[in-house]
Parts: sequence; structure tokens; C-alpha cells
Amino acid sequence: MTAAWGGICCSRPPSVYVSLREATYSHGNIMRRRAYTVSVPGEGHWREADYTGIASGRDTDKFEDTALTPIRSSAVDAPYVGEYPLVLECRLKEAHKLGLHTMFVGEIVDVKAEEEALTNGRPDIQKIRPLLFGSGDRGYHGVGPRIADAFSVKTPPKTVR
Amino acid sequence: MTAAWGGICCSRPPSVYVSLREATYSHGNIMRRRAYTVSVPGEGHWREADYTGIASGRDTDKFEDTALTPIRSSAVDAPYVGEYPLVLECRLKEAHKLGLHTMFVGEIVDVKAEEEALTNGRPDIQKIRPLLFGSGDRGYHGVGPRIADAFSVKTPPKTVR
Repeated sequence: MTAAWGGICCSRPPSVYVSLREATYSHGNIMRRRAYTVSVPGEGHWREADYTGIASGRDTDKFEDTALTPIRSSAVDAPYVGEYPLVLECRLKEAHKLGLHTMFVGEIVDVKAEEEALTNGRPDIQKIRPLLFGSGDRGYHGVGPRIADAFSVKTPPKTVR
Repeated sequence: MTAAWGGICCSRPPSVYVSLREATYSHGNIMRRRAYTVSVPGEGHWREADYTGIASGRDTDKFEDTALTPIRSSAVDAPYVGEYPLVLECRLKEAHKLGLHTMFVGEIVDVKAEEEALTNGRPDIQKIRPLLFGSGDRGYHGVGPRIADAFSVKTPPKTVR
């Protein structure tokens, strides 16, 4: 399924959360398998990502419908999307029911990335070009240009402008 | 402070998390006040956002250093950044120590936005132009063009390409 809400939530151990409604098919799957993968779609796959956020795996085979390729994770008991440029393979650590959504926190036990998505062996957002979701306009957006190095402004920037 | 890790984690009640190291000054402040705000920097404020992610409030007054304006939240016991286009005001609901980072989950009790950041009364990512952080390249990135409406591909997209 496509999840609107997810992100990194701890650096050590590396951890990522996804928040899912209890009504979703994936919610039950994650509870049973105590595992999940996060497959990050590039902007070229917005149609597939959108469709798999609308249809339910209870009613249809979404891999079949989209011609995306399910690949069995070598690290955890869950599939990932072969065509997506970056995949995080996670062992479920915590589940917190916050309201409509349950927040699943998983430890990232392995990362798979396309060779072309890397720079110096690290995932490069300019190459992955992840799909951004704008909840305010209910739209998808791309990543724009790189602006600057982080951790570079070590003196007060008041007078820099 | 600037946090690398944060995001929406529940739609109802609307909730947002931030993950902070226990060593940070803000970690203690949030625990004491049971409240925080999330001020979203636009890309034009990358220098301020970068500096406030490096310096500590224990050592210096970062509002003074950056000439950013602290504004007292009308909804919770915490300040926000007057110049940033979007602000979420949060009451702390849960704190989960995951490892190096503690994940703070807060209910969003009010939202402040610049008039110019809205379209039809809703925050517009193309107007906010939030600063994106790429952890792989340790760099800041902008938001690119809008790609498509979400929730629009209701039939299997296999043959659409």
C-alpha cells in the first residue's frame, strides 16, 4: 500500500515509522509478520503509487494491476517493490495506536538501493527523486534543486544576508 | 532547534512527531512544558535553519543570533518562529525513547500560516516551499514542480504508460 505518513524517527538504531489506519489490509499483515518494507517511489511512478494508495489488497492483486514486481526481502518476512529506487527493510519494534492511525516503528535492518540512486555509496535524493505528497493540495510534487550543504553555517547568520 | 526527523503521524486527532536526542536543550524543555511548536522554514531561511541545528540554546540565544522573531504561541506554552511560513502548535501526548532519539508525539491544537502560504485556505507546499533535508548527501533541497493530483488513478495503471 501507499502510506501518506512515514519517516525516519531514530538514527541509532536506524528506525523508520509508517502510520496506517487499522482498517487497511497492510495493518493486519504488519501485526502478523512483525515486519515491513518501505519502498520509496520515484516521481516517474506516481500513477502506480497513487493507485496502490486507493485500491486494497483485500480486493485485488496490486502488483498484478500495476505490473510492479514483488521481490521477497532477504532480511525480513515482507515483499518490496522491485522498480522503486530505494527500499528500507524493517523489523517491527513498536506499535502505537494514536487515533485513526497506528504508528508502526521499525528498525531498519537492511537498505536496498539502485546503483544509479547512489553517490559515493549513499542514497542521493537528487537521483532517487522521491515523490512528495502535499496534504494541503492533495497533490504530488517533485524534488527541486539542491540548495546548500547542511551543517555549514557555524557562525550566527544575522549579518550574512 | 532544527530537527532532521519529524512528520505527520496521525490524521485524527491531527498529530505530528519530532525526534530529538536526549542531549539537546529542547528535549528537556518539551518534557517540562509538555508542549512544543513545529515552525517550518522556507527555503529562503536555510542559513537560519542550519545554524539553529548546530548551535545550542544552552550556550547562546539563537533568536538573537539569527534575528528571527520568537512569538509566544496562543495555544500552547512554547514559542514559534515569526518569519517561518507554517507553524504547528502541539500538546505533547507521548514520548518514546527509541535509542539515540526520543520520539515526541504531539496533538496539533492549532496551525498558524502566512496568508501568502495558503490556497483556498489550506497550506500550499508550492507557496511554503519548505526546506527538504537529504540525509544521504547531508544537503538541503527545494521543492520541485507539482506533478499530479493525488487520489486520481482509480483504475489499474498497467496499460496507461
